[in-house]
Amino acid sequence: MGSASDFETLAPACDILAELGIPYEARVVSAHRTPDWLFEYAEQAHPRGLRAIIAGAGGAAHLPGMLAAKTLVPVLGVPVVATPLNGMDALLSIVQMPAGVPVATFAVGKPGAANAALYAAQLLAAHDPALHQALLARRTAKAAEALARPLNAPNAIPPVST
Amino acid sequence: MGSASDFETLAPACDILAELGIPYEARVVSAHRTPDWLFEYAEQAHPRGLRAIIAGAGGAAHLPGMLAAKTLVPVLGVPVVATPLNGMDALLSIVQMPAGVPVATFAVGKPGAANAALYAAQLLAAHDPALHQALLARRTAKAAEALARPLNAPNAIPPVST
Amino acid sequence: MGSASDFETLAPACDILAELGIPYEARVVSAHRTPDWLFEYAEQAHPRGLRAIIAGAGGAAHLPGMLAAKTLVPVLGVPVVATPLNGMDALLSIVQMPAGVPVATFAVGKPGAANAALYAAQLLAAHDPALHQALLARRTAKAAEALARPLNAPNAIPPVST
Amino acid sequence: MGSASDFETLAPACDILAELGIPYEARVVSAHRTPDWLFEYAEQAHPRGLRAIIAGAGGAAHLPGMLAAKTLVPVLGVPVVATPLNGMDALLSIVQMPAGVPVATFAVGKPGAANAALYAAQLLAAHDPALHQALLARRTAKAAEALARPLNAPNAIPPVST
Amino acid sequence: MGSASDFETLAPACDILAELGIPYEARVVSAHRTPDWLFEYAEQAHPRGLRAIIAGAGGAAHLPGMLAAKTLVPVLGVPVVATPLNGMDALLSIVQMPAGVPVATFAVGKPGAANAALYAAQLLAAHDPALHQALLARRTAKAAEALARPLNAPNAIPPVST
Amino acid sequence: MGSASDFETLAPACDILAELGIPYEARVVSAHRTPDWLFEYAEQAHPRGLRAIIAGAGGAAHLPGMLAAKTLVPVLGVPVVATPLNGMDALLSIVQMPAGVPVATFAVGKPGAANAALYAAQLLAAHDPALHQALLARRTAKAAEALARPLNAPNAIPPVST
Amino acid sequence: MGSASDFETLAPACDILAELGIPYEARVVSAHRTPDWLFEYAEQAHPRGLRAIIAGAGGAAHLPGMLAAKTLVPVLGVPVVATPLNGMDALLSIVQMPAGVPVATFAVGKPGAANAALYAAQLLAAHDPALHQALLARRTAKAAEALARPLNAPNAIPPVST
Amino acid sequence: MGSASDFETLAPACDILAELGIPYEARVVSAHRTPDWLFEYAEQAHPRGLRAIIAGAGGAAHLPGMLAAKTLVPVLGVPVVATPLNGMDALLSIVQMPAGVPVATFAVGKPGAANAALYAAQLLAAHDPALHQALLARRTAKAAEALARPLNAPNAIPPVST
Repeated sequence: MGSASDFETLAPACDILAELGIPYEARVVSAHRTPDWLFEYAEQAHPRGLRAIIAGAGGAAHLPGMLAAKTLVPVLGVPVVATPLNGMDALLSIVQMPAGVPVATFAVGKPGAANAALYAAQLLAAHDPALHQALLARRTAKAAEALARPLNAPNAIPPVST
Repeated sequence: MGSASDFETLAPACDILAELGIPYEARVVSAHRTPDWLFEYAEQAHPRGLRAIIAGAGGAAHLPGMLAAKTLVPVLGVPVVATPLNGMDALLSIVQMPAGVPVATFAVGKPGAANAALYAAQLLAAHDPALHQALLARRTAKAAEALARPLNAPNAIPPVST
Repeated sequence: MGSASDFETLAPACDILAELGIPYEARVVSAHRTPDWLFEYAEQAHPRGLRAIIAGAGGAAHLPGMLAAKTLVPVLGVPVVATPLNGMDALLSIVQMPAGVPVATFAVGKPGAANAALYAAQLLAAHDPALHQALLARRTAKAAEALARPLNAPNAIPPVST
Repeated sequence: MGSASDFETLAPACDILAELGIPYEARVVSAHRTPDWLFEYAEQAHPRGLRAIIAGAGGAAHLPGMLAAKTLVPVLGVPVVATPLNGMDALLSIVQMPAGVPVATFAVGKPGAANAALYAAQLLAAHDPALHQALLARRTAKAAEALARPLNAPNAIPPVST
Repeated sequence: MGSASDFETLAPACDILAELGIPYEARVVSAHRTPDWLFEYAEQAHPRGLRAIIAGAGGAAHLPGMLAAKTLVPVLGVPVVATPLNGMDALLSIVQMPAGVPVATFAVGKPGAANAALYAAQLLAAHDPALHQALLARRTAKAAEALARPLNAPNAIPPVST
Repeated sequence: MGSASDFETLAPACDILAELGIPYEARVVSAHRTPDWLFEYAEQAHPRGLRAIIAGAGGAAHLPGMLAAKTLVPVLGVPVVATPLNGMDALLSIVQMPAGVPVATFAVGKPGAANAALYAAQLLAAHDPALHQALLARRTAKAAEALARPLNAPNAIPPVST
Repeated sequence: MGSASDFETLAPACDILAELGIPYEARVVSAHRTPDWLFEYAEQAHPRGLRAIIAGAGGAAHLPGMLAAKTLVPVLGVPVVATPLNGMDALLSIVQMPAGVPVATFAVGKPGAANAALYAAQLLAAHDPALHQALLARRTAKAAEALARPLNAPNAIPPVST
Repeated sequence: MGSASDFETLAPACDILAELGIPYEARVVSAHRTPDWLFEYAEQAHPRGLRAIIAGAGGAAHLPGMLAAKTLVPVLGVPVVATPLNGMDALLSIVQMPAGVPVATFAVGKPGAANAALYAAQLLAAHDPALHQALLARRTAKAAEALARPLNAPNAIPPVST
């Protein structure tokens, strides 16, 4: 992530990776304050065997795109709300990459961080049937959870069956 | 894609996949006009061995998200300019997915289509060293091409070396 | 609605339907987490005799459009504020449907939920004179209420008559 | 509609109503230039037996909302692109109605006009089984049409079956 | 104003009119809930001798434009923040009037209300030299006030003179 | 206006003032290129007896606000489309004035120019009954014109009466 | 700055200038309330030897552009959040200057103020090697600081080395 | 600039530098396609004696910010319209830099390019009185030019004097 203050937004990604048993590292790599470290990190990503890089950043969010410019390891970008512009600046700075250097972009904020982790897991699941099953099971559980939460609608006709 | 009229936007994706020798199919699957076919397509994606689905759509672009809701095969969404709102409607409809169902989103229009194809290639390259090399070679060639185009700046100091 | 957390936004719709004596059910149907249940719900809507479906959702709000793709029962969409983008993402995801699959869209948030319920009542009132009268009476009451609230403008010339 | 120049945008609504055999009238009613005629039109809508009013307008689009303020006949609003702001002004002017006076809003421009007509037909179909069948048949035809258009993707794997 | 809840935003207008000794009335006139009263109010404005109408409204803010459609008394519109869209909906609904029916629009919120009152005073001052002098004096006082507020910049070079 | 290139946008204002027999002058006054001339023009406006100043400008449109800062003669601002941002930059630069220095803002582009001229005429009409009558007659004529334009809707039920 | 209330936003600029030992003055200069003082200030800037002017303003932010219109001393504009529009109005009012009168614009709010001060320091450093060194040292320190902040990611693989 | 296709937008910068006799070089440096060359260029900027770097880029415009991250030579960023989003993506990607790494941002498109060149000249003029005079003369000439262009307003009162 671009700054330690982005960590709150990215924490759901860590939680999901941990829940799925996927090893990960959490590092501060700042495009603007530590550009050489950014390049070194990106250059080492493939040799080190990294399979995906989740990069969150706010404002003029250059971290995901610059990582993608330096490595073929898939980069997953998460726009962080870090300015008064509600994350629209980060979203456009990440998603509007020119042809040739792709960044997979996810939603602004925590849902995007969660989804970047799940997407990374989907990538790995292509060659990991157990992880595929774990993702399927997670979806089933989340669907059941969504339906199980009661609604406070006293006048509604009760549902007969689902 | 959601409509045959989206094909012009998505053509760069086909071109790049063909250039890289990656087999692909091009199908119209409309979230709104053919919802059952959408579900069938998504359900068959994993059993059929699809490794990635590039889904372009415009306006209230529901195709990528609904595919992602029905399969764990990675979905790559491309916002298409199909309304007077310049593709902002499609971008937000694709990228702002809730936690749990990720769609990797790329830039509005043709650059996004090209990048979705390249990103799909990067995913496959994790287990395909030849493809990895092809992608590296493509980047090197594009960099050289970018630098080789002459600029019509007659008064500028000529570059000594690059 | 797409999630139990959307219920706070949609509660005014329930209140108005209850106030007008219109039977309704309140169900969680998530386009992304429970897509099959969404399709089943939509397919059963007409046979079960539903006359209208009020669907609220936030972010990449696909619920109203996907319901509309699967049934001819009128769908009324309510954009919910569920992300940092103030509901603009939900509004565009709901209203910008392509030709062929209409969703009637209402304002972002609680006023939109209230209006969706009133609009559903107006649809039913076409064949229900008592409901038509109830809606007329409600409007008259709300107009009187609007005019009756005092303003704290001590220097203003008092109104002579209304 | 608010102006004869809006007719190009609204023509698809007329075409669809004619195609479905639904009688309609096309009138210019301007909120700003003919406000008294607007009120008279709205007041007569219910006594005259109108079942729905499709109102298109651009810029500060007040026509749909003011009609809705004066009648309980369902109003369907269509934002027209009439200014440099791409219809965003018309969309917000129509959809953001306060609680109490609903306007069903559709997409900016011609797709919105088409959908307003289809939605009006869906409303009428609740008591008109033949119209319901006609709408179902139209959807089936449109789905087949969407799938039948060939794509110019010479390198794609040909589809085996649909 | 369109609603008693808009009064907080419009209060600065009342304060300034009172400060300048300009008689005014404060009335709730709702375009959507009390459309007939709106028309009556607008029709009576000129006969009653009103010289200006300050109209504040939020969301799909139709009040200023509909007043302007019914009277030649100058209408001054103030966009109120009444929805999650930060007043942008109200601003566009008020300012984007079509040619023929002008509304003078001011800033979103309280500064706009204050300025509408000052502008109304400027209109009246064309034939009221004392009011002209009062407005000049107010500006001079505000300028002095702006410059007199101390800044907490301990390291700054102290200003020598102004 | 801020530039001779803005004249095309402001021409409708000149046309309407000429049509109504209101004497006016058309001058280029640039906030950024001729700031001293701007101040001189504003300072002379009241002594010279100007009754209103219509100021059009695009981009970072500072002309209306700076005129308003220097004179109590009413300033009417017209946002001009002069950049790729569709006039939104000019609109916000003109309308969002701080409390104390009002600018009456009108729609982006030619409709705004026309309305600024009509509004200026309304201001003058307060003490000019003939101009008041001319404005009334113009509105009546425009309403008749709006209703007289035929619509090409061959299947529509012909209107019985208006 | 345009108002004493903008000082909170601009304080980081003062802090950085003080930290770097660069003498500065902090003055309220309001484009709208004190236009003559603005002109006087701008006219004296070059004779007094000012090397840069950091100008923060909100809403219809005319201060930076009007200063730039009156002096060749480099103006650095900082958009301040002073209205419900999140600073987008100030940003566009400052950055969208027409060709001929440049304003260097920085980010909305405090980061922009900090960067304006650093940029001013970079300008001065062209002829001040000690300041150049101080800026280099500051960057090195900030990079180290960014990397030193611990992350609360208990499940992450610990970094081996940097 | 980031791409040879950006040159059309940046040409006015070259023209102005040539007009003012300021030596410059025009180079393609792409943040995404030639990141190592970008770093090398930035690292050499100070040793080579560059006094300013004008960097234009479109979409997710990372070039100005990454240059600024690698050098203390002042960077001047010009947003280029390269996508359907009208340059808003480039503007936000350039201007919203985090505290610590400033980029001076100018208007979207050609006016921004012209202003970046003029601003660079203003920086150099601090130690170059002849250039200062040339800039003053240019402003005077542009002001005269602005006032000299005739307006086609046949009914306007002719200006007596300027």
